[in-house]
Amino acid sequence: MCLCVLRLYWHLKRMIMKNVLLFLFVCLVTMAKAQIVQDSDGIKEIFDAALKNGKSYEMLTELCTKIGPRLSGSPGAAAAVEWSRHMMEKYDFDSVWLQPVMVPHWVRGEKEIARVLNSKKMGMVNLTICALGGSPGTGPSGISSQVIEVKNFDELKQLGSKVQGKIIFFNRPMDPTKISTFAAYGGAVDQRGTGAVEAAKLGASAVIVRSMGVNLEDYPHTGGVRYSSEVKKIPAVAVSTKHAELLSQLLKEEKDLQVYLETHCEILDDAPSSNVIGQINGSEFKNEIIDIGGHLDSWDLAQGAHDDGAGVVQSIEVLRLFKQLGIKPKRTIRAVMFMNEENGLRGGTKYAETAKAKNENHIVAIESDEGGFTPRGFTMTATDLVKNKIKSWKPLFEPYGLTDFDHPGGGADIGPLGALGTPMIGYLPDSQRYFDYHHTPEDTIDKVSPRELELGAAAMASLVFLIDRYSLK
Amino acid sequence: MCLCVLRLYWHLKRMIMKNVLLFLFVCLVTMAKAQIVQDSDGIKEIFDAALKNGKSYEMLTELCTKIGPRLSGSPGAAAAVEWSRHMMEKYDFDSVWLQPVMVPHWVRGEKEIARVLNSKKMGMVNLTICALGGSPGTGPSGISSQVIEVKNFDELKQLGSKVQGKIIFFNRPMDPTKISTFAAYGGAVDQRGTGAVEAAKLGASAVIVRSMGVNLEDYPHTGGVRYSSEVKKIPAVAVSTKHAELLSQLLKEEKDLQVYLETHCEILDDAPSSNVIGQINGSEFKNEIIDIGGHLDSWDLAQGAHDDGAGVVQSIEVLRLFKQLGIKPKRTIRAVMFMNEENGLRGGTKYAETAKAKNENHIVAIESDEGGFTPRGFTMTATDLVKNKIKSWKPLFEPYGLTDFDHPGGGADIGPLGALGTPMIGYLPDSQRYFDYHHTPEDTIDKVSPRELELGAAAMASLVFLIDRYSLK
Repeated sequence: MCLCVLRLYWHLKRMIMKNVLLFLFVCLVTMAKAQIVQDSDGIKEIFDAALKNGKSYEMLTELCTKIGPRLSGSPGAAAAVEWSRHMMEKYDFDSVWLQPVMVPHWVRGEKEIARVLNSKKMGMVNLTICALGGSPGTGPSGISSQVIEVKNFDELKQLGSKVQGKIIFFNRPMDPTKISTFAAYGGAVDQRGTGAVEAAKLGASAVIVRSMGVNLEDYPHTGGVRYSSEVKKIPAVAVSTKHAELLSQLLKEEKDLQVYLETHCEILDDAPSSNVIGQINGSEFKNEIIDIGGHLDSWDLAQGAHDDGAGVVQSIEVLRLFKQLGIKPKRTIRAVMFMNEENGLRGGTKYAETAKAKNENHIVAIESDEGGFTPRGFTMTATDLVKNKIKSWKPLFEPYGLTDFDHPGGGADIGPLGALGTPMIGYLPDSQRYFDYHHTPEDTIDKVSPRELELGAAAMASLVFLIDRYSLK
Repeated sequence: MCLCVLRLYWHLKRMIMKNVLLFLFVCLVTMAKAQIVQDSDGIKEIFDAALKNGKSYEMLTELCTKIGPRLSGSPGAAAAVEWSRHMMEKYDFDSVWLQPVMVPHWVRGEKEIARVLNSKKMGMVNLTICALGGSPGTGPSGISSQVIEVKNFDELKQLGSKVQGKIIFFNRPMDPTKISTFAAYGGAVDQRGTGAVEAAKLGASAVIVRSMGVNLEDYPHTGGVRYSSEVKKIPAVAVSTKHAELLSQLLKEEKDLQVYLETHCEILDDAPSSNVIGQINGSEFKNEIIDIGGHLDSWDLAQGAHDDGAGVVQSIEVLRLFKQLGIKPKRTIRAVMFMNEENGLRGGTKYAETAKAKNENHIVAIESDEGGFTPRGFTMTATDLVKNKIKSWKPLFEPYGLTDFDHPGGGADIGPLGALGTPMIGYLPDSQRYFDYHHTPEDTIDKVSPRELELGAAAMASLVFLIDRYSLK
């Protein structure tokens, strides 16, 4: 072979190699682009279906108006179990079953009184209150005592023996300057959660807690108290934010105010109840479970439209949208309606125990329990690998208004599953209105925007769609 | 000088130069960082003040409940002029004045009837309607005619001579799959705006227009009709979306349905009214005006809480926040309450004419007229230079949930100013609930979230803060 031929040979070889590489590169780019187009098309189909013919709002209207309040152990909770089982059967999911769990059974009783007895300025003043969940009642004889206001546990502890026999009034407001109202809630809810225990340690006779509302309102917010088996359980009530301000104002001028409290709550024996579960079986990786849920119980005072009827119907809707659109998931998608998030978390605990005992492979657990408001993003508690994979999908969500993928989170009910190592994702709606309704009689269906609710279900379904398609590995 | 000395000299010189450059660079970075910190601190102060002690919601409650509906030419509109003047004087702005403008004066009259007369299936059926703004009345004898449904102007034109004497029923729904409900509105509102003119050209006797609502609702949405001086004005009414569906369903089965329409609207002589303007004078560049506004008039059926009481109180609040925080602007900040956006745009037109005649330098015009909902971003109609400058501030807004700076926009009232070359910016709140209330009796103060409203005012004040600090050049 002469040199020029050899050169020509090498030249051609280089050219061919270059072109083959270019060709392969173009192929890869085209495929990647096609994949992105397919993803965005799939997601658009989901959003279109939810906005045109979504059933979330219709379901939520039924749950709120036909059943209404559904505190653990109540007839409403039992009806909600039957309702959601029936709903998932009606939509023809591959399997629907109940997972029995015993739940706490607290009842409020009829009468709730808080009355300032001796204001020189205003005479007798009725305060708008409600007993907090889990609280013992005062009984018919009530409790009368001097009231002392504190802002936090440090102030309480400094009072020392002065607390003995008194009613402690926790009055630290939620910080209105926090943009996330959940952050504001997190900064104040210790008063409701453990105020009664901390005050009882020092001998208080009862506690009044400023409601967990960020605005000035006329109604109280109920919610759970975490009592300790080692400290005497004392009665605990929440007072409306307006009357918290009034009481505080009166106390500034009259230190020796006496308040009369009367509640008739009772803690009954644990009651039988259930988580309600529906699933669509995966076609390729049936054992890989994508879990999506909300909690079925609500407080007794509320229809529980946002807390957490929204999460319940959105979870059912995710599976229904898959069926309506004929999407056959590769992995198993499971909707879980957890029982007893509000005052015990027995449903979430039971679910995780069972999953562990059966050695089930939950590749992710998603919860919607921050209300049925307009979508903002997703929160995550997972490895960086998982978080980055989900963040890489952000451009697919941005056209629908979901831009916040940067905060940790998940959900109370999926917490026990998270503790076993399952990545947790929380649906993140706009939080501005949540604490106007949370745990109050105002949490009703008319406070829910149909479009905001359906958009949330579509966002969750789109996330499940992507996880099913690409897994989280 | 020997060579090594020369080398040493050059070496030292290079080192010094390098260090000087490094020093200057570090200085610049530090200053830029400090500037960013100052900006974010300033913005945090604004948001904190709005969320702790904002007055937007208090003002809006007054405007909605003490004044209520305020259609141009009505006593309500006159009261709103006085109210907003008084409010800005109370807050002690540097100057407050009225800018007189003559406005159209349309009145609805008492009775509004739409009745299907001859359904074989349902007999006589009353439809929930309201006259559209600017419509002539049918008078007491009413109009009875066959109804023909069309979805668009092409279908109408194809009907040709069949339209003669008939009532045309425009029934193309807003597209629910548009994520921005304003986009959906834009795709349907031609039916309300010019349906009456297009139908009259073909000899129709009246039009019924499906309400501009994206959900199925029981109430009609009013709104303006753009009549032409060259075409006969025929009566136009809006029917609730639910009854649009009902009428359409009936028409599918019974083509010869007759409908009776009766309205008593009147177009009176133009009435005297005013734009209301308040300003804080700039300390350095007094002649550079930053304009921020909303419109003071509302429809007669509505309290006009979101449309556009929200924009009015937010604009006043921007200036009030500057005063409360002791921020002395370098440029003049002017709040403008425009009159007659809904059915004439006379206020916006007058304002721009006056600005031109006085050769005023409006460096930007900002409007809030998309409701008092949770902030999402700003829309812009401006040069790329201006848009890019504003987009460069996006990181300062993201912590407050404003991430959308990518869409064109502005506002109707500032449009005439925009036509003179002024950059236009629209405040962009979340749009999902807007068309549940727009132009209906549902647009009331209880549909407004205090926090969402105050956050909007803070976002607008922050934008004004940055424009004042850096201008838009």
